[in-house]
Amino acid sequence: MTLDDLIASIESTDPVHETSAWEHLDSLTKPPRSLGRLEAVAARVARIQMTTRPDVGKKAIILAAGDHGVVAEGVSPYPQDVTWQMVANFVAGGAAINQLAAAAGAELLLYDVGVARDISAMKDVRHRKVAPGTANMAAGPAMTLEQMERAVLIGADAAFEAIDAGCRLLGTGEMGIGNTTAAAALTAAYTGEPVESVVGAGTGLDADGVARKAEVVRRALAVNSVSGLDAGGVLAAVGGLEIAALAGVFLGAALRQTCCVADGFISGAAALAAVRMCPDAADYILPSHLSLEPGHRVVLDALGLEPVLQLDMRLGEGTGAALAFGIIEGACRMLSGMATFAEAGVSGQGD
Amino acid sequence: MTLDDLIASIESTDPVHETSAWEHLDSLTKPPRSLGRLEAVAARVARIQMTTRPDVGKKAIILAAGDHGVVAEGVSPYPQDVTWQMVANFVAGGAAINQLAAAAGAELLLYDVGVARDISAMKDVRHRKVAPGTANMAAGPAMTLEQMERAVLIGADAAFEAIDAGCRLLGTGEMGIGNTTAAAALTAAYTGEPVESVVGAGTGLDADGVARKAEVVRRALAVNSVSGLDAGGVLAAVGGLEIAALAGVFLGAALRQTCCVADGFISGAAALAAVRMCPDAADYILPSHLSLEPGHRVVLDALGLEPVLQLDMRLGEGTGAALAFGIIEGACRMLSGMATFAEAGVSGQGD
Repeated sequence: MTLDDLIASIESTDPVHETSAWEHLDSLTKPPRSLGRLEAVAARVARIQMTTRPDVGKKAIILAAGDHGVVAEGVSPYPQDVTWQMVANFVAGGAAINQLAAAAGAELLLYDVGVARDISAMKDVRHRKVAPGTANMAAGPAMTLEQMERAVLIGADAAFEAIDAGCRLLGTGEMGIGNTTAAAALTAAYTGEPVESVVGAGTGLDADGVARKAEVVRRALAVNSVSGLDAGGVLAAVGGLEIAALAGVFLGAALRQTCCVADGFISGAAALAAVRMCPDAADYILPSHLSLEPGHRVVLDALGLEPVLQLDMRLGEGTGAALAFGIIEGACRMLSGMATFAEAGVSGQGD
Repeated sequence: MTLDDLIASIESTDPVHETSAWEHLDSLTKPPRSLGRLEAVAARVARIQMTTRPDVGKKAIILAAGDHGVVAEGVSPYPQDVTWQMVANFVAGGAAINQLAAAAGAELLLYDVGVARDISAMKDVRHRKVAPGTANMAAGPAMTLEQMERAVLIGADAAFEAIDAGCRLLGTGEMGIGNTTAAAALTAAYTGEPVESVVGAGTGLDADGVARKAEVVRRALAVNSVSGLDAGGVLAAVGGLEIAALAGVFLGAALRQTCCVADGFISGAAALAAVRMCPDAADYILPSHLSLEPGHRVVLDALGLEPVLQLDMRLGEGTGAALAFGIIEGACRMLSGMATFAEAGVSGQGD
């Protein structure tokens, strides 16, 4: 399958299933709409699953790791080695996402698509390295178009594999020192918003660091002439291998009509790349939380989607997606398991 | 045990445990404070449990049901029978809280403390009826002081029983047609805020209904001369049997140094009653969500506490508490299970 085939095969959802879900929601034993956003989440999953009785089933977080040549510009307070060290930490179970995925009852699926160090000896990692990190986007394209496409298709395959294993709810996560810089560049390129409104502190830059990072993003956008590129070209020029893989996860989930939960800013930028390549894919994306990174609000507005949680988080790894799984699962159980007023023999308003 | 004994036995938490928790949080493999409010939740539970490795363990929602004489004033669009019908629905598993408690892995413990109808034949309900509903607070006190005290002690016993059964996280829920009117009266009486800013649509009043409800609350506050009453006196005069029981759940949890999660507006008013009777009890309360009922913001401000979720819900039953359980459990697992930078061999900032 090529990327063009993948995109051409994705179908939009049918609003009739959402309408039926709302009718059923309004018949359940609660004042109409009294569960607020929980009802909207349930109706959205119902539409994706084409049923008024959505079911979460097995859950997985697909976490893609990759390095970024742009770290040569000093855009992160952490050294590049942290990327592979954190992958080792994921394998050992010591990271935040390990705990939050376990709390949510979700499997954590680790993919190396572009870690700079050779980690091929690590167990429990799916080794799909496209390149040992991207090139420095401030000096030219981060990836070739061919590398970008390979990474996207790896992500789509990751989604297919999880869905074939019974997952009905996927979430995205990432690890890659420097990747808020790539996410900011993608967001600015896709939305046209000014660079200063999409660049943030990342893992902890001070004000001078943020200003330097913004300057690097401006240079990357200019040197790659992003305004003349299509959606895939932008992803290759100023994206990242793990971001391209996550864009592929969203596309793969959409092809298989499966709800895919976006984590924070970097996952959101990957979702935006997927949607700019294939607008129908937006129907299958559910954002989990609003990150403290300023560019995330811009991404969500561009996607036209509202997150479930707002916890002032900015970690990535899929931590927001894992936390949102519980809310989404509750929403589906509510819609699928509650009794109607008639079934329960409960009086309605004005009875 | 009397109510005075209960209140006198409650001890405040020690901030040293929260300080230790923050030190540990800042050593874990993530940028410092990058999990935002999740870290604050973890630190709060750590302080309550007096450990840097908090553990949620078994979870339960204590749901108290009671009727309100004030429904004679036309303050709800639903008939009073809905209270017992919904208790039957809880027993049958058809309500929202059944699904959300199950999704959270929490047990649902049902208490009749004041349902108007005789439901003593219902199985799976803990029958502790103090009276078949309160008196009409718009014409005089809703409860006698003795009834209020009995209901509070029943709630405290409910907390003790759940904690003795191994629960380390409790949540509150309620059912009682008319109880947003009582919660509004309590909130106005305890905070001095104007009645119009604490009265809302409840289960679905129109604007005329809300205005009538506000007038009923004003009458209740005046006829009971609440400004001259102590905290327990206010609870008896304009509260509800289920609200008094939930105040007791908060006090019982505090006595046993156990975190108790407040649901929405009515649970919040019960928490406020508990804290006005015993300020140290506030240390053990964690609000779950911000309800759409306008009085809830007033309650939270008076408690000085911020909720975890904001989902535009207004159902009650403990639904917000059950949804927040997943976030709180994730927070505790994060703090207790993550590796430190040193343990994981991950480089820090500037390394």
